[in-house]
Amino acid sequence: MNIAVDAMGGDKAPRATVEGAILAYREYGIPTILVGNERLIQEELTRHYIKDDKLQIHHATQVAGMAESPTDILRKKKDASICVALELIKKGEAQAVVSAGSSGATLAGAIFILGKLKNVDRPALAGVFPTLKGPTVMIDVGANVHCKSLHLVQFGIMASIFAENILGIKNPRVGLLNIGEEDSKGNRIVREAYETLRKSNLNFVGNVEGREIFTGNLDVVVCDGFVGNICLKLSEGLAEATGIMLKNEIKKNLLAKFGYFLARNAFYNFRKRVDYSEYGGVPLLGINGIVIICHGISTPKAIKNAIRVAKGLVEKKVNEHLLIRLKEFSESKNYNSK
Amino acid sequence: MNIAVDAMGGDKAPRATVEGAILAYREYGIPTILVGNERLIQEELTRHYIKDDKLQIHHATQVAGMAESPTDILRKKKDASICVALELIKKGEAQAVVSAGSSGATLAGAIFILGKLKNVDRPALAGVFPTLKGPTVMIDVGANVHCKSLHLVQFGIMASIFAENILGIKNPRVGLLNIGEEDSKGNRIVREAYETLRKSNLNFVGNVEGREIFTGNLDVVVCDGFVGNICLKLSEGLAEATGIMLKNEIKKNLLAKFGYFLARNAFYNFRKRVDYSEYGGVPLLGINGIVIICHGISTPKAIKNAIRVAKGLVEKKVNEHLLIRLKEFSESKNYNSK
Repeated sequence: MNIAVDAMGGDKAPRATVEGAILAYREYGIPTILVGNERLIQEELTRHYIKDDKLQIHHATQVAGMAESPTDILRKKKDASICVALELIKKGEAQAVVSAGSSGATLAGAIFILGKLKNVDRPALAGVFPTLKGPTVMIDVGANVHCKSLHLVQFGIMASIFAENILGIKNPRVGLLNIGEEDSKGNRIVREAYETLRKSNLNFVGNVEGREIFTGNLDVVVCDGFVGNICLKLSEGLAEATGIMLKNEIKKNLLAKFGYFLARNAFYNFRKRVDYSEYGGVPLLGINGIVIICHGISTPKAIKNAIRVAKGLVEKKVNEHLLIRLKEFSESKNYNSK
Repeated sequence: MNIAVDAMGGDKAPRATVEGAILAYREYGIPTILVGNERLIQEELTRHYIKDDKLQIHHATQVAGMAESPTDILRKKKDASICVALELIKKGEAQAVVSAGSSGATLAGAIFILGKLKNVDRPALAGVFPTLKGPTVMIDVGANVHCKSLHLVQFGIMASIFAENILGIKNPRVGLLNIGEEDSKGNRIVREAYETLRKSNLNFVGNVEGREIFTGNLDVVVCDGFVGNICLKLSEGLAEATGIMLKNEIKKNLLAKFGYFLARNAFYNFRKRVDYSEYGGVPLLGINGIVIICHGISTPKAIKNAIRVAKGLVEKKVNEHLLIRLKEFSESKNYNSK
């Protein structure tokens, strides 16, 4: 197995990406192909005194800019590290790609270069949220602004398979994000998706409200990419703001500072539990290949964890399961193309 | 001035609602009319040894059930406490209504009994979020599942006036909630709203992402009621889950428990800062009268604060400002009815 890492993608690339690959190799023994400017990547490897044929370099002359349009990148920068990395899957030289670069370019590149899995209308991003009980998957967290009800149902199927195989959740409980629990709530698309999900063979628990996400009482939350992306970023922002507000209050008072010092392990464990980088990145499900999209500000730890998740998706043959279950769905009476 | 309180609305009514009204009178001297079952309300007042003509009772024989359809309530339960309370505004006996009952019934009743302000197409709920710097208003947090771009622009105008007059923010910075900052992001409705907001005389700062809400770098966040309601409930759920997770970590360890004990004041101040009940309720803007919708689980403190906000909206003549600014907008070149 080989995971291709877009070494040039991300705000701190290639430093954070190369270090992430080194960590993934040291901790989990995962071999990677570092795609990008050979000299810069070699410099990073040398900085870590690493010379190992399990960390290969694959040279790419160009870099996809964060501000560039994805279609421009695909048309005019065929040698951008993300494009070259995706081509490695196509050629069979790698099984997965991890990128912290422009998510628009990775998304477009994945669809254009690798193509969609059969019976998938829209690939979607599956974000993992920490909750009171365990991780919950929200799908879609940003790949599709507009969704038909059919897409939402396919998202539910894809995320269920992900939760089963990667998070080890048996018979995942699937909820449809809505503004009330009654089946009459929401817009037409959500109401149609409710009906199809209800008749599907998923473990569908019905509509769920925003406050349910963090209880851990469900495993998959389905929504369109506009709502999901806003939820993901709002959660990150709120978690960050909460930490800062609490810190500011503690700083105001010497006794509180001492108290914080005594309780610091509890805070450390708490932060580890809500730390998004523990999950590493967001898999793009429904692509003919494994693609993980990471935050632009990814730390080496986040890259390492994304590589670990990529390995899991390859080893558990998640795409083969997706193909089977989506074929079943497309042939079911329940399927309609609305 | 008189504020009508729907004494029978909410999970803990009439206990929490009557106690909230007593607190509002004791702390701020605000007179209220408690609308609902006279005997039950009187029992609560007697429990608090209160007999004061500034806390009147207005009898209503019926109660709007949480599970009943709003239209059924309006048609068949004309003597429900929420309907009677709204009628008090219409008759000029009260200037505002505070209710923690069925929000659907309050919303429908407000539009049906009091009507919309001139030049308002859709009344909207303005939720106040605590942030790193100060409160931020999100509009709409649940009144309208479907919105045209015109509605979003009107929301921005209404929330700006609310932020100016009630939160004391000069020239509020208005952002449009979206999945990226570029003006090409989002769906057609959001892109159209972006253009109109850009040309308006609001202090429009452009598209904002979910993570910006809690930085305190903007004062008003505009979105449709589907997205806004999910954001509001997600934030409440996440804040609650964060508190529980942190508490669980602290409980695991004796030293951490002692540390927490020393830092308890900081935690108390922090909780006060992020406590939604500090803002009391959500004003329904665009109605021919002042209406505040409270959480079903509202505590007496939340009801008290909602009554205080209602008084502010009456005293600052917010609806008069709304009428002027919305008339200006409807006559501007920038207006289009899409």
